[in-house]
Amino acid sequence: MKKPFMGCAYYPEDWAEEQIDYDISMMKKAGITCARIGEFAWRKMEPERGRYDFKWLHDVVDRLGEAGISVVMGTPTATPPIWLIREYPDVAVLNESGIRKNHGGRRHCCSNNPRYIEACDSIVHAMGREFGKDKNIIGWQIDNEIYLQGCVCGYCINRFRNMLKAKYKTVDELNRQWNLNLFSQAYDSFEDIPPAVNAWHNPHILLEWRKSQCDAHIDFIHRQADILRQYTTAPIGTDMMPVNGVDYEKMNEKLDVVMFNHYNVPSNLHQLNFWFNYLRTLRDRPFWNTETAPTWNGSTAIGQYLKPEGFCRVNSWLPVALGGEANMYWLWRQHWAGHELMHGSVLSPEGRPTHTFGEIQQTCEEFERASDFIMSTMVDTNVALHYTSLNYNMLEIQPLVADNPYTHSVMRTERALVSAGVCHDVIGARADLCKYKLLFSPYMLTLEDGDLSERIEQWVKNGGVWVAGPMTDQRNSIGAHYTDRAMGILERMTGVRLEYGIPTDGCYLKAHWSDGSELCHEKWVECYSAGGETLAEVTKGHSALVGKSVISKFNYGSGKIILCGTVLDVKDCVRLVNTALEEAGITAYKTEGMLTVVPRVGDDMSGLVLCECGYENAAVELPYPMTDVLSGRHFEAGKMQVEPYGVYVLVK
Amino acid sequence: MKKPFMGCAYYPEDWAEEQIDYDISMMKKAGITCARIGEFAWRKMEPERGRYDFKWLHDVVDRLGEAGISVVMGTPTATPPIWLIREYPDVAVLNESGIRKNHGGRRHCCSNNPRYIEACDSIVHAMGREFGKDKNIIGWQIDNEIYLQGCVCGYCINRFRNMLKAKYKTVDELNRQWNLNLFSQAYDSFEDIPPAVNAWHNPHILLEWRKSQCDAHIDFIHRQADILRQYTTAPIGTDMMPVNGVDYEKMNEKLDVVMFNHYNVPSNLHQLNFWFNYLRTLRDRPFWNTETAPTWNGSTAIGQYLKPEGFCRVNSWLPVALGGEANMYWLWRQHWAGHELMHGSVLSPEGRPTHTFGEIQQTCEEFERASDFIMSTMVDTNVALHYTSLNYNMLEIQPLVADNPYTHSVMRTERALVSAGVCHDVIGARADLCKYKLLFSPYMLTLEDGDLSERIEQWVKNGGVWVAGPMTDQRNSIGAHYTDRAMGILERMTGVRLEYGIPTDGCYLKAHWSDGSELCHEKWVECYSAGGETLAEVTKGHSALVGKSVISKFNYGSGKIILCGTVLDVKDCVRLVNTALEEAGITAYKTEGMLTVVPRVGDDMSGLVLCECGYENAAVELPYPMTDVLSGRHFEAGKMQVEPYGVYVLVK
Amino acid sequence: MKKPFMGCAYYPEDWAEEQIDYDISMMKKAGITCARIGEFAWRKMEPERGRYDFKWLHDVVDRLGEAGISVVMGTPTATPPIWLIREYPDVAVLNESGIRKNHGGRRHCCSNNPRYIEACDSIVHAMGREFGKDKNIIGWQIDNEIYLQGCVCGYCINRFRNMLKAKYKTVDELNRQWNLNLFSQAYDSFEDIPPAVNAWHNPHILLEWRKSQCDAHIDFIHRQADILRQYTTAPIGTDMMPVNGVDYEKMNEKLDVVMFNHYNVPSNLHQLNFWFNYLRTLRDRPFWNTETAPTWNGSTAIGQYLKPEGFCRVNSWLPVALGGEANMYWLWRQHWAGHELMHGSVLSPEGRPTHTFGEIQQTCEEFERASDFIMSTMVDTNVALHYTSLNYNMLEIQPLVADNPYTHSVMRTERALVSAGVCHDVIGARADLCKYKLLFSPYMLTLEDGDLSERIEQWVKNGGVWVAGPMTDQRNSIGAHYTDRAMGILERMTGVRLEYGIPTDGCYLKAHWSDGSELCHEKWVECYSAGGETLAEVTKGHSALVGKSVISKFNYGSGKIILCGTVLDVKDCVRLVNTALEEAGITAYKTEGMLTVVPRVGDDMSGLVLCECGYENAAVELPYPMTDVLSGRHFEAGKMQVEPYGVYVLVK
Repeated sequence: MKKPFMGCAYYPEDWAEEQIDYDISMMKKAGITCARIGEFAWRKMEPERGRYDFKWLHDVVDRLGEAGISVVMGTPTATPPIWLIREYPDVAVLNESGIRKNHGGRRHCCSNNPRYIEACDSIVHAMGREFGKDKNIIGWQIDNEIYLQGCVCGYCINRFRNMLKAKYKTVDELNRQWNLNLFSQAYDSFEDIPPAVNAWHNPHILLEWRKSQCDAHIDFIHRQADILRQYTTAPIGTDMMPVNGVDYEKMNEKLDVVMFNHYNVPSNLHQLNFWFNYLRTLRDRPFWNTETAPTWNGSTAIGQYLKPEGFCRVNSWLPVALGGEANMYWLWRQHWAGHELMHGSVLSPEGRPTHTFGEIQQTCEEFERASDFIMSTMVDTNVALHYTSLNYNMLEIQPLVADNPYTHSVMRTERALVSAGVCHDVIGARADLCKYKLLFSPYMLTLEDGDLSERIEQWVKNGGVWVAGPMTDQRNSIGAHYTDRAMGILERMTGVRLEYGIPTDGCYLKAHWSDGSELCHEKWVECYSAGGETLAEVTKGHSALVGKSVISKFNYGSGKIILCGTVLDVKDCVRLVNTALEEAGITAYKTEGMLTVVPRVGDDMSGLVLCECGYENAAVELPYPMTDVLSGRHFEAGKMQVEPYGVYVLVK
Repeated sequence: MKKPFMGCAYYPEDWAEEQIDYDISMMKKAGITCARIGEFAWRKMEPERGRYDFKWLHDVVDRLGEAGISVVMGTPTATPPIWLIREYPDVAVLNESGIRKNHGGRRHCCSNNPRYIEACDSIVHAMGREFGKDKNIIGWQIDNEIYLQGCVCGYCINRFRNMLKAKYKTVDELNRQWNLNLFSQAYDSFEDIPPAVNAWHNPHILLEWRKSQCDAHIDFIHRQADILRQYTTAPIGTDMMPVNGVDYEKMNEKLDVVMFNHYNVPSNLHQLNFWFNYLRTLRDRPFWNTETAPTWNGSTAIGQYLKPEGFCRVNSWLPVALGGEANMYWLWRQHWAGHELMHGSVLSPEGRPTHTFGEIQQTCEEFERASDFIMSTMVDTNVALHYTSLNYNMLEIQPLVADNPYTHSVMRTERALVSAGVCHDVIGARADLCKYKLLFSPYMLTLEDGDLSERIEQWVKNGGVWVAGPMTDQRNSIGAHYTDRAMGILERMTGVRLEYGIPTDGCYLKAHWSDGSELCHEKWVECYSAGGETLAEVTKGHSALVGKSVISKFNYGSGKIILCGTVLDVKDCVRLVNTALEEAGITAYKTEGMLTVVPRVGDDMSGLVLCECGYENAAVELPYPMTDVLSGRHFEAGKMQVEPYGVYVLVK
Repeated sequence: MKKPFMGCAYYPEDWAEEQIDYDISMMKKAGITCARIGEFAWRKMEPERGRYDFKWLHDVVDRLGEAGISVVMGTPTATPPIWLIREYPDVAVLNESGIRKNHGGRRHCCSNNPRYIEACDSIVHAMGREFGKDKNIIGWQIDNEIYLQGCVCGYCINRFRNMLKAKYKTVDELNRQWNLNLFSQAYDSFEDIPPAVNAWHNPHILLEWRKSQCDAHIDFIHRQADILRQYTTAPIGTDMMPVNGVDYEKMNEKLDVVMFNHYNVPSNLHQLNFWFNYLRTLRDRPFWNTETAPTWNGSTAIGQYLKPEGFCRVNSWLPVALGGEANMYWLWRQHWAGHELMHGSVLSPEGRPTHTFGEIQQTCEEFERASDFIMSTMVDTNVALHYTSLNYNMLEIQPLVADNPYTHSVMRTERALVSAGVCHDVIGARADLCKYKLLFSPYMLTLEDGDLSERIEQWVKNGGVWVAGPMTDQRNSIGAHYTDRAMGILERMTGVRLEYGIPTDGCYLKAHWSDGSELCHEKWVECYSAGGETLAEVTKGHSALVGKSVISKFNYGSGKIILCGTVLDVKDCVRLVNTALEEAGITAYKTEGMLTVVPRVGDDMSGLVLCECGYENAAVELPYPMTDVLSGRHFEAGKMQVEPYGVYVLVK
């Protein structure tokens, strides 16, 4: 049986042959089983247009293979060689100040530029031909950390206008949907439409512009995937960052394996629960954590401090515990020159192990020890939390209140779920809901994302428990208000009337739960007219608001809806989660501290993985006696103590 | 007899016919008597160059009229249609980075561009022809919230050079007055002079450049006024914001009614005293408060929090109490799409009343109830405070010390006057001084503004009491020092010598009043040689400063001068005000808390309007028994308590 | 015998003849002995290209001379007249946004532009011809406050590429040294290389680009020096600011006298020790403090507060105490118009003395009284502290950890040295080490600066005590890591192995001295394997680090090395200094408070100058009875009290 990969990024193009031998020997010593290579080495592969040199790279792949180390091969399209810029200076990104990026960093070429795309096609074809059948290559990574680049070149403008034409058909229809009577903004033709920069633009053009840029990047990646599939059957992916501006769902729809880079630190380690719970749901194949720091990240200065002992281990375990099959470090050996000189690594530039080398060795051994359990079980849950790219981008443009970034806001619910001991999925708009008994949809400004709202309604009717809000279902798909109702489907489904949406400083307005305890809220309060069962209501503030509901419960078909109108603090959010669990008939694990409890079930075995994420003492109530696969220790049923950054793989 | 207008901004171009009917019925329900329309609807009026469509707008005006709702008609020149930009791309503002604004927001065209001006002329002529005689139109608003746009296009540069030629006649004279020997900056011809951007420019070119841009906007507005006067006799104005960069006095000189937009919140509600006291003095016709938020303002995020109950009422009352005849909300119905989606309104996009609807109804009824008193009395005062556009712009460029914005600084004196129970005017440089017994001129870096200094001198000679300083009379009209004296007229008038102007942190240097109590000051201290009667002096600090006067009193003709050399805290500023009141023989109302007391006098009646602005309990000493027109309650002479945000219209 | 100059900047081009007479009479009254003139008066000297007018300037020089006031003549090349910009618009600096600077401020022309250089040549030749032999001119100042201007014009790019060609010979060699395999960045030719803007550039191109810009400015100044030397024998210099981006050493190598402008305030007065200790070592001639504020600095707002009495005196004394021969104020008389209207001066625009006039008079008298001692003694020390331009620029680009500016970091060691009563030199990379017994080299990221590392090694071998680190010797000359060792020479010299470089928040990791007392550190910790004598080690933190040395002592030849791996707080830094003094057998003065003690030794006399820099009571232990030249007071051996801002010139 396979075991989870422990990998690292490696740049053989920067090192002499004897250093490569040394590095491979040290990888074996550490326990590394996989190397990510190639991602920025375009010029070494194609020093002049059309002249290829892959010998050096074959050699590295072979030497790694001989050492039993698999390879993830990257396409180097983020770093085109100077000959491309020299031939076609306009491949470079043009920013909104009219300045073109210079050759020098990464991702400085426009994903819409045909000359750039053409050159990318050629190198990817060439790599496919060379390495497509190589047995030691277990996966392909396309490009690197693609994101919205802010290019406003003519190609970007053309794509934008073409997208709008295809969607709206006539400019009058666009004018109507965007309400361009306002401010006399209406266009006479699609050719009038400027890029969404250098003006006080309306939210609809801003959203469509982001969509156009996002699609350009997705097409750019998918095009490479299509080429690679002509040569290889190994899984293909692209490594993205913890930002949902470029749609994770849409990007991964046509890719095989979800790849993810993160650089979390002690203060936000627990947020990895959110991300891995999300990545797990995007494809049916286990995701790969393609980058994390072995010590810290940094460019020309280190941006972090020394982390407590154990962090490296628990940080490496989390992706595997939560459904991935790989943890890879960036980077194996610190660069000796060039960019990111202060980025932490497994070896120093002079080849010395850094201080977490021992933790890495230990974790590699543990992956081995736990491989049976991990590879033959899967994460088991029937609770889901929504997180969509469309809402991410819409709230970037229309945050409703200040300081309201979507990811951060959704993570508050995530935090409450983990505190309540609930293992759960984080899902996008297209995810099937059938497997869930309980669904949370906070900050979903719009539900108009494909057939999502219809599917939710049907799912609730069939017995699902849906916790919606705050800020949910208040815009259509392009960010406009409804004019005949305040909410898309929720008013109809619940019979409630959204009377007021109120920005609050948490002081003047007060709200209480129906048992009289205060409800601590912030930023935003929706006040509903009576209807259903009021769980919490406004008790102080403007007299028009007092007595209005803030949280209400409704029956709908065989299911239930809990409508929550405000941003709760963690304590009250946990209370909301517990109420919802009860409605859904779900029993969670009882925990203390910031403990991640991952139930995993397989055909032949089941158990729990525990990861302490808060660097503090924690505990969990074990339902029956269990044994830790890592240490061999036995634990009785009842309260089990977990030390800071503790990791346990418990089987019955 | 008329009553004060309660109005709202309305955008019928965005709404279907049946919605307009509904909106008008709800306006009547609220008590709204006036709608501002048209201001951004250029493209709906003129969808192609020269083809006009006013039918829809006539229809709206008529339907409003049928409902008894008057109309303020706006010219839509802030939002030119796309056909203008397409025909003449250079109408768009060119910023100092060489980037043209895109079509998309508001006020993105250059007020100096002849093609833009020509198009504005046409639409304004057309509107005048269509609506000039409409009886339901009670006023015209030109453009919207004009401000310094930062355009550096060729037309702006030409205007600037032409202005300089007209003023200085020869470039040598300009070189001399600007002292361009310094840094070898002298120009050989007017054509050498660059726009005042992209260099470390001297304060004189910066000031003249601001003046040129300011004049361009004023000309732009006046030109429309001249056109409208060919068609209408209704009063004409332009709605401006609480910023004096574009000269309020000069702008309104050729307009009929002063229009003003503000979005104050609880923390700066009291500053409306300042603004309304100022607006009142600009024209002999009562001003119109054309915009204020019914709940809060916001664009894609709300920028404020829920305000306490009563705020909406007192905020709506203040302009009327202080001499205006209209309070209008922005906006009636929240936009359903486009910009400013989160801006508070009277109705939601789906047509539901927001939480202040009741306060608005109440205030409308109160305007009715108090209309006799309000319309037949005027604000009564003999105290004035200077506030001029020239000093605003000069202190923007030459603040003397850090963190010294002119408006904010003058408002400290305003605050002391209100605390001392003094109703007063705020006046510009051209205001007649005859009606006043007491005048405050703080932070008036220059008095060289027309014949102002001569008029002040004569007025003091005739018996006026003038409180001058700090930072007053220390520059000539273009911001240069005098070289033969430290102050323009004050040294000569008082016989004093300004020894030192000192930046202070309030710690090392100390000053005391002549009775030995400490004088709390900040930022800046002027030290005067002996002369007149010293009211306060430096008591600690550098030995060269100790014993020098900081506040002194002088006789001049039949009048008096109090020279104050420092920025006082509120307590000491109230002391200075009380000293000045005593010198001028003026008795003020005794108040507690942040209470605005407005004495109003008419031919047949007189009384007081009280507005509590601090959301706290306040009080006023009534000189005789009075009756509140709003509630019918009777109050005995002596201390009258006023509740938070209380409003009273008291008659004898 | 000469006395130290007390000077001031004066701008006769701005003042009428009678004012100049008045100003000169007041200079005499104050005691001023030297005026800096001419630096910005290009247009008055050359109103049209090639037409010169120096009569007015001769007249001023002569009148000053008649009054016994010497002249420092400035070349006005920082302020070219408008005719140059009109003829050649591209002389103006082009910034990275593609915008050219407008005529208007200072230093807005590119030091690489041949047309600008040509015009500068002409005016400097003309001035040399006119004033080269003038006996009243005691020195020449070239240009003013030159700094890195950020120009990216074609001339700058050409110079950059030519510099790279000359240094690296082939582009392959450059690619290799810069490791441009990384990110596929390698260039095919020198013509491919962009200016180091508008990209995420690597540290090596950034460093070379800074070097190219720095060299351009140095060439620009040296070219003028070469011209002036054809006409004059007076000393030539250029006045620079407290920033080492433009290399102080290289710049002054070909100049005669080091000139320096500073505007320190009470909170950083003590840092002048650092600067003057540095300036003193650059040339064998006493430096000139060419600018300091008589009161405060400011542009259109004052940026400082009133300083305590005595500050002006001690601030004026410090450069003279520490080895300079001139203190000059900027400026004599406040500008009446133009820029910097709020900058403090000796006279106000109307000609009135400012409040420090008395302090200036006193200091002038004191310079007279102390002149024998000052002019016949020199500062006496055998301790040095490194401070180099290469490390300044390298740490600007590669700070290693956040908030780590080189000058500030080195000043912490400076502060500890002063606290320990040690008078010392601050030296650049080229300074001879023979005269020193003790050398500190903190934050010297690279020692590869000419033959520096060889010379250090030899000097230690011969008996020197070298305190190296933190962050020292970890990069080669272009900022790259070594790959075969962690440190250039220190590992070999000490036998130690640098195990880890750790970013620290000062909390999780703890370290202690060998006597058990805690060592307070911040930001960065280097952990060394055992070797030599451990003075301090890690006691808490990640187990891989515990027990590793942080400070160790080694013998090397006849000398010693103390390797310090962390940023110490002041207390522990003083402990390190005291340890090093003991090793070097040096006895320092015992002081209390922030007291600068300057031992000066001459052929015939010796003594101490004391300057209290912290505005607090201080003390020094006198080794024998001494007499203060300034007051005539006699002091016994033993503890001598010094009052805040006290200055004493003590002789045996």
